[in-house]
Amino acid sequence: MNKAGKTSPVRDISAVRALTFDVFGTVVDWRSSIIRECSVLGKSKGVEADWEKFADSWRGGYAPAMNMVRTGELPWMSIDSLHRTVLERLLDEYGIEGLSESEKDYLNRAWHRLKPWPDSVEGIERIRKRFIAATLSNGNISLLVDMAKHSGITWDCVLSSELSGHYKPDREVYLTAAGLLGLEPGSVMMVAAHTDDLLAAQALGFKTAFVSRPLEFGPSGRAEEPEGMPFDITARDFLDLADKLGA
Amino acid sequence: MNKAGKTSPVRDISAVRALTFDVFGTVVDWRSSIIRECSVLGKSKGVEADWEKFADSWRGGYAPAMNMVRTGELPWMSIDSLHRTVLERLLDEYGIEGLSESEKDYLNRAWHRLKPWPDSVEGIERIRKRFIAATLSNGNISLLVDMAKHSGITWDCVLSSELSGHYKPDREVYLTAAGLLGLEPGSVMMVAAHTDDLLAAQALGFKTAFVSRPLEFGPSGRAEEPEGMPFDITARDFLDLADKLGA
Repeated sequence: MNKAGKTSPVRDISAVRALTFDVFGTVVDWRSSIIRECSVLGKSKGVEADWEKFADSWRGGYAPAMNMVRTGELPWMSIDSLHRTVLERLLDEYGIEGLSESEKDYLNRAWHRLKPWPDSVEGIERIRKRFIAATLSNGNISLLVDMAKHSGITWDCVLSSELSGHYKPDREVYLTAAGLLGLEPGSVMMVAAHTDDLLAAQALGFKTAFVSRPLEFGPSGRAEEPEGMPFDITARDFLDLADKLGA
Repeated sequence: MNKAGKTSPVRDISAVRALTFDVFGTVVDWRSSIIRECSVLGKSKGVEADWEKFADSWRGGYAPAMNMVRTGELPWMSIDSLHRTVLERLLDEYGIEGLSESEKDYLNRAWHRLKPWPDSVEGIERIRKRFIAATLSNGNISLLVDMAKHSGITWDCVLSSELSGHYKPDREVYLTAAGLLGLEPGSVMMVAAHTDDLLAAQALGFKTAFVSRPLEFGPSGRAEEPEGMPFDITARDFLDLADKLGA
């Protein structure tokens, strides 16, 4: 805290060389994408369901499974596998039958085809002109590569929890990423719409940027608010983030 | 061998989804780049030397050190570290003194600033429109990321030996890469100007493309010839490779 005790300290981000981006919710709008893909499939198969709830349950279901991997109750499983496990349970719960293996696989890969928020492509492009821009997602590498190609996003490097055999917010994920980039944590800025991700990175010395994604959980969902949080940058979107980085 | 016994069999590459590129010598012209950087530094420090020989010795020196890592005589060391070890020895041999730590570090990072062959950027751009294009280099990730940014090359994914803790041509390197891309080996094509790299990949089921780089070892050096080798594609350069891939 500075002498005045109330104004925020000026945060020095001059050492930052690379930004690592959380992806689900921060770069891409997983919810609308999943709802759309499920609706299209449902229509073609003559299945009616509350696809909004289905999408929320699919997303919600993977955290407990991921935590079992984090605590060692489950061996390492990629997000693709975790998504598939949850999908099988949901299809059962919703009584959706008659999907072939390739239809299920295609549906599971909806997570490879998530659409970016409207500012993501342009914002990342601007940021890449001055910084290294990498993913740092719990999504597996192949998912992230497919998603980037599908959405027209270009990354300098695709980094994933998969490379450390741990899931965020485990410290190994962040430290492995900084190590692979050849940088000290203080030269890397974590970008996310989620405070737990940023606080975990910050505790290891990363710089942090919170980006608001008020619609991540839908119009009536509760997105996170950064108020009172000790992040280096708080931005409305990626264009605002680029402005604040001078990029 | 087909019935005629002489004509090459038609090779089916329809399963290929991703290409993994060797980098040093295949994508970038390490020799001219290193000679140029050494000459510039030499001039600024008033040092004269045979920089062509220096460059060849620098490149030549890393293979024995890398093999000591491969056989377990040395613990894992990145190419940056191996390059630095060889550099220290060469500076000593050439009696080049008076370089500060930051000057040595800058010189060692000349390998992060290697220039692409004239067709590399355009060729990779064309190939990326139809396929996933990734590095698969013994260079460490940060070196490959810096090099791509420096040279204007865009990769879908930066993969490195570093991710398996082994160096090419160890099988772990190729299998780790295919695994991270979520593909069977037969859906990945290794691209290189070096037969040992391609033969190692091919033995694991990868498809292979040999690209000629006659000047890799300089005008009087001996580049490899693919004649009689069982590769799926043999190309003059990356534009020819793109043509042959229909990209």
